[in-house]
Amino acid sequence: MVRRAAIVAIGSELLCGDGLDTNSRWLSQRLEGLGLRVVLHLSCPDEVGAILDALRFAAERAQVLLTTGGLGPTRDDLTREAVARWAGVSLQLHEPSLERIRQLFARFGRDMPASNRVQAELPVGARVIDNEVGTASAFSLDHAGTRLYALPGVPREMRWLWENALAGELESADAAPPARRTFRTVGISESALGERLLSVEERPGVEVRYAAEERLGTIRVTLLHEDQDAVQDAWREARDLLGEHVCAVGGDTLAESLAGLLHARGLRVATAESCTGGRAAAALTALPGISRRFLAGFVTYSNRAKVRDLGVSEELLAARGAVCPEVAAAMARGARARAGADLGLGVTGVAGPGGGSSEKPVGLVHMAAAGPGDDDLRLLERRFPGDRDLVQARATAAALDLLRRAAGGGAATG
Amino acid sequence: MVRRAAIVAIGSELLCGDGLDTNSRWLSQRLEGLGLRVVLHLSCPDEVGAILDALRFAAERAQVLLTTGGLGPTRDDLTREAVARWAGVSLQLHEPSLERIRQLFARFGRDMPASNRVQAELPVGARVIDNEVGTASAFSLDHAGTRLYALPGVPREMRWLWENALAGELESADAAPPARRTFRTVGISESALGERLLSVEERPGVEVRYAAEERLGTIRVTLLHEDQDAVQDAWREARDLLGEHVCAVGGDTLAESLAGLLHARGLRVATAESCTGGRAAAALTALPGISRRFLAGFVTYSNRAKVRDLGVSEELLAARGAVCPEVAAAMARGARARAGADLGLGVTGVAGPGGGSSEKPVGLVHMAAAGPGDDDLRLLERRFPGDRDLVQARATAAALDLLRRAAGGGAATG
Repeated sequence: MVRRAAIVAIGSELLCGDGLDTNSRWLSQRLEGLGLRVVLHLSCPDEVGAILDALRFAAERAQVLLTTGGLGPTRDDLTREAVARWAGVSLQLHEPSLERIRQLFARFGRDMPASNRVQAELPVGARVIDNEVGTASAFSLDHAGTRLYALPGVPREMRWLWENALAGELESADAAPPARRTFRTVGISESALGERLLSVEERPGVEVRYAAEERLGTIRVTLLHEDQDAVQDAWREARDLLGEHVCAVGGDTLAESLAGLLHARGLRVATAESCTGGRAAAALTALPGISRRFLAGFVTYSNRAKVRDLGVSEELLAARGAVCPEVAAAMARGARARAGADLGLGVTGVAGPGGGSSEKPVGLVHMAAAGPGDDDLRLLERRFPGDRDLVQARATAAALDLLRRAAGGGAATG
Repeated sequence: MVRRAAIVAIGSELLCGDGLDTNSRWLSQRLEGLGLRVVLHLSCPDEVGAILDALRFAAERAQVLLTTGGLGPTRDDLTREAVARWAGVSLQLHEPSLERIRQLFARFGRDMPASNRVQAELPVGARVIDNEVGTASAFSLDHAGTRLYALPGVPREMRWLWENALAGELESADAAPPARRTFRTVGISESALGERLLSVEERPGVEVRYAAEERLGTIRVTLLHEDQDAVQDAWREARDLLGEHVCAVGGDTLAESLAGLLHARGLRVATAESCTGGRAAAALTALPGISRRFLAGFVTYSNRAKVRDLGVSEELLAARGAVCPEVAAAMARGARARAGADLGLGVTGVAGPGGGSSEKPVGLVHMAAAGPGDDDLRLLERRFPGDRDLVQARATAAALDLLRRAAGGGAATG
């Protein structure tokens, strides 16, 4: 039987919109990877009554209940008290935890502030989970058929506890997660994607999940089925239906897919960006080990920089303006030549909200990839909807995909 | 009386970790801005029973209930059916909505696919909310003391509906949101911040909220109190206690705060980045209107690029390596001179996970800001904990803050 899991995120900052709960997604990915089924996420404010209410709702619907947040030393850290009430027990001082916290402070040459003492007051019956990276005492507690794990809300600590304790504890041989294939698409809207994959969705027992990744400019698609072969068949059909729109497979991001190609083929790259302002370079340099493949990036926001740093002709800029295929091509070739790279990328466009015209509206972006051969040139013109952030994100994705195709990555195989 | 609001996000992709729910935060910010109090966020899968369960839980605790997602044309779009069951009514075809969807398709020269018909089947008693940007029919429905608004999950459509319909409808003169001051800090940990602000937290009636913004490298702090003067007093005390750690006020991000200074003082800037790989340039160019202030960015990932594009001396690189204060200074000065800017930024460090040594460990970053005077130079050395992404994020924040100080922005005032 598939175990059901629920996640409760505790913190008033989440409900007023100051904070974004990324912990629940991170934990969900791990829980699903172990074969558990996550049935709900719930966020509640730092109030004992609200936390208790949330714990009850979640515990009735899951065998495994993870909470994040509310384990710190300040007044608004109330998870310990709410869990104790949920289980109908009292709080008591856990001496080894107090000692551990004292030692953490001692390591930095400081005395433990009195306020931190409450972090060692845990519900009776709780089992402490060792936390080597922070003062919060994580713990688990069984009550009414549910095992609750209380984790700190600081992502780094939460992840450390998952990796070092929960992952091993929750792994269970009898849980068989469904077979899955994941891939990412670019340059196709979610609704067009859904229509294109209608026959895949209609395959018996196949589940298709879509997740638009606005900041990455891609859509993540997951195919699930209990049977490995059925997933493989569904994937082959999806791949044939989507062709070059598939830009990455197996959980890779578009940037990772591109980097993999660059590594495999020994290609070195340089970027020249105007309207994306360094986003393409930042996406590549987010990847470990990219320094062997990424030589240089030029953020040539002004026309003067385009001329000086990339050798774009002043006459061309005067005649055609900065946003045209010829300037994109000159930027790509300039970056390639300047850095001595195999591939050069050029991106120029109108990110908005200002700067648009009827001829060159907001969202218009010209992209070019030069190389690997001296005469190789790929051009792409797109008009992206959305605000500045979205135009930049989508242009970055389209530009990285153009580089990927220039590097020889066409439609996905496998 | 403060109206209570709840948000239910509907979509299996949220629970398996494929998608991140950013809609709920966005809506929470707006609801709180109108003086409503958001009491819970709940995410549930695309199953009628689970949605119904979530609606009941949320509706019992709020007068205003917003749902996002599940209004599309595909089989897993079940919000309409679940809402109908919640209200105890049936679904019926809403002709004007069907006509609107047909016309949307006609505008792109296409016939409406049969599958889209379900998008016009709404619960009896529902009031349609005009959606001019997509096929989903948004609607509201009153039941048992709660007003439910069903919104699409696509952020662009959801936001359009908020701006064009919900915001006006939910605004109410009798709701008085608490007075608040928001500011951002950099270069201080959340726990150190909490200790520093203990006396502010102890002021009667003052609520202090902290939200660590890992991707921005900053912490957002909000002070709340029913009384405007009490918030102002709390803010003055916090500002005095934190000094230069306060890098932005009034909801501005660090990058916005920096850009505001550049605009106000007429300063133009150029960046030279190694370990942050374009993130500082991308953070600045995310801002509309920055093209007058940001001249050029150099992502000099290789030593060759540092020499060629910034004029860093080969001897210096050979003698000291790329990660040292002298190279950061030469990068900052090189970018400034090259671009003819008033201010130049240089960032060089070890982002990890590889490339570290005992002398230059992972996380070590040297930063420099040159200008506005030819001899003006500020140096900053930091060692950041965390993985590559976090090191890059924190280094970017520290570097932008260094630029901010070089531009004359010291401790906050006002």
